[in-house]
Amino acid sequence: MIHDGEIAFGPGEEFRFIRRLIRRFGQLAVGIGDDAALIHVPRDNMVAISTDTSVENVHFRRDWLSLDEIGYRATTAALSDLAAMGASGVGILVALVTPPESRKNLDALGDGIARAAVAAGVRIYGGDTSRGPVLSLTVTVFGNSRDAMRRDAARAGHHVYVTGVFGGPGAAVRALADGAPVPAAWRDRFANPRARIREARWVAGRAARAAIDISDGLVADAAHVAAASNVRIALHIDRVPTVQGVDAIAAAQSGEEYELLLTSAIPIDCVAFADRFGIPLSDIGAVTDGAPGVQLMMNGVPLEIELRGYDHFGHV
Amino acid sequence: MIHDGEIAFGPGEEFRFIRRLIRRFGQLAVGIGDDAALIHVPRDNMVAISTDTSVENVHFRRDWLSLDEIGYRATTAALSDLAAMGASGVGILVALVTPPESRKNLDALGDGIARAAVAAGVRIYGGDTSRGPVLSLTVTVFGNSRDAMRRDAARAGHHVYVTGVFGGPGAAVRALADGAPVPAAWRDRFANPRARIREARWVAGRAARAAIDISDGLVADAAHVAAASNVRIALHIDRVPTVQGVDAIAAAQSGEEYELLLTSAIPIDCVAFADRFGIPLSDIGAVTDGAPGVQLMMNGVPLEIELRGYDHFGHV
Repeated sequence: MIHDGEIAFGPGEEFRFIRRLIRRFGQLAVGIGDDAALIHVPRDNMVAISTDTSVENVHFRRDWLSLDEIGYRATTAALSDLAAMGASGVGILVALVTPPESRKNLDALGDGIARAAVAAGVRIYGGDTSRGPVLSLTVTVFGNSRDAMRRDAARAGHHVYVTGVFGGPGAAVRALADGAPVPAAWRDRFANPRARIREARWVAGRAARAAIDISDGLVADAAHVAAASNVRIALHIDRVPTVQGVDAIAAAQSGEEYELLLTSAIPIDCVAFADRFGIPLSDIGAVTDGAPGVQLMMNGVPLEIELRGYDHFGHV
Repeated sequence: MIHDGEIAFGPGEEFRFIRRLIRRFGQLAVGIGDDAALIHVPRDNMVAISTDTSVENVHFRRDWLSLDEIGYRATTAALSDLAAMGASGVGILVALVTPPESRKNLDALGDGIARAAVAAGVRIYGGDTSRGPVLSLTVTVFGNSRDAMRRDAARAGHHVYVTGVFGGPGAAVRALADGAPVPAAWRDRFANPRARIREARWVAGRAARAAIDISDGLVADAAHVAAASNVRIALHIDRVPTVQGVDAIAAAQSGEEYELLLTSAIPIDCVAFADRFGIPLSDIGAVTDGAPGVQLMMNGVPLEIELRGYDHFGHV
């Protein structure tokens, strides 16, 4: 019995599928074909590594986003965890689970993955393909880290900042769920978020110490930092920039923003940040001693309402 | 509004689920709680990294394996990719997708993941949890690599070896599918495979150059090496050790063995290997020039039958 040689892979339909994806990735794909990817690490750096799953009908709906957008968002969501650490981006691995009947239409999914990789300056080192009842993507990201920002590094006296403009994804999802028209500005923030990797490295080089990316909502993610750092965080939500047509309360609960919340002992130059990256950096509060948690403020006064974050298990 | 601080994580059901898993992992869990894991890399090493998904009713069935075994196997399958590269094992990330109704019964799954991590000498650096229609586990593994073995490193004149005893998983799956009794020796190889990380490092230190782990079946995986290396591989399947009751032809097609096929320019001491690891290392063939592919041999004579490997998309 003779198996014909085929470039890099053996025979079979799974391998044809992988080969088509790799052709689609072009020069973004490196070293694919071995059992594991091999990564060089610069001296005195650590490797930052994270994994993130997006499941059809849980994290995305095919009637709300194109396949290209689904691939882009899933990859960007994973890359955002590198930004939260202040790490550089080096590469990704993509584990795809696909219903057999949709396999032939997944080129656009590959295009979206590639678009996110290009936007973050990373390459595609391989992955895995499987069958399954619904589409899901588990994207593993890795990069280099010298001076990592950490969730547990917020200290009393720190300033609290956020990157970007909030509320778009939450408002877009509400409108889509209601069958209402979705303003372009909301939809763009929902469908095309950015992993703030370059922004994070810039602030990490200027004294930022604690950071988190906003996936569960500003309030919920601030609570994660407060819990990990054992501090109280006062958030002035009226100072959070919002997209047009979304109020501060809604913006503070909007998830999947992939903007960054960060803390710093010394002020960061918000004007220089905005000049460089074309998005705002806003001072929205302070870290204090006291019972660990988040104290919301509006116009200088404590807010006594309950805001909820996004929780995959408690939600939908 | 005040969110109570909770250790390392904010509030919500997803976080309670994660916390329970982490308690279950005990001292195996390190650095969990940040957005990305940070890994030290020894100088002059590269990082080897790979990801592998196991989906319910595709890669495993809950009526064939316990949840503990499902967690163990999925994790071992991923770790086996480090063995295939000759890399050390450092850690894993586990992305779990779980149907909401089964979340409360997943402690045993965590136990199985932990058991595989202990067996391979790695720790658990974090992961991700999501809802989904069926249980699936995407395990990302990473380790250090100095002298990686590669699929494309087989050269004419190399000896070809396999570790271990073949045929158990394939025979167990056939018996389970037929509702037939499953001998303990078959079931153990199916339910409790080993990632041959230590064995791989030993042979890599003794001249082995090309390697692959046997997930698709010996013939199919040998074809991957032949294709990547652009060589012909003669496999004497009568020299492959088999579990009792399984013939050479069936053993050569049995998938999910997680044993290693490797090639070496100079002979490797099979007796010393067996003494050290308690499993056989068998010389089963040779790499030659000629049309890339696999030539099966039996009792010194070419076999002219067609053997199939395992292909997630072509299969079931």
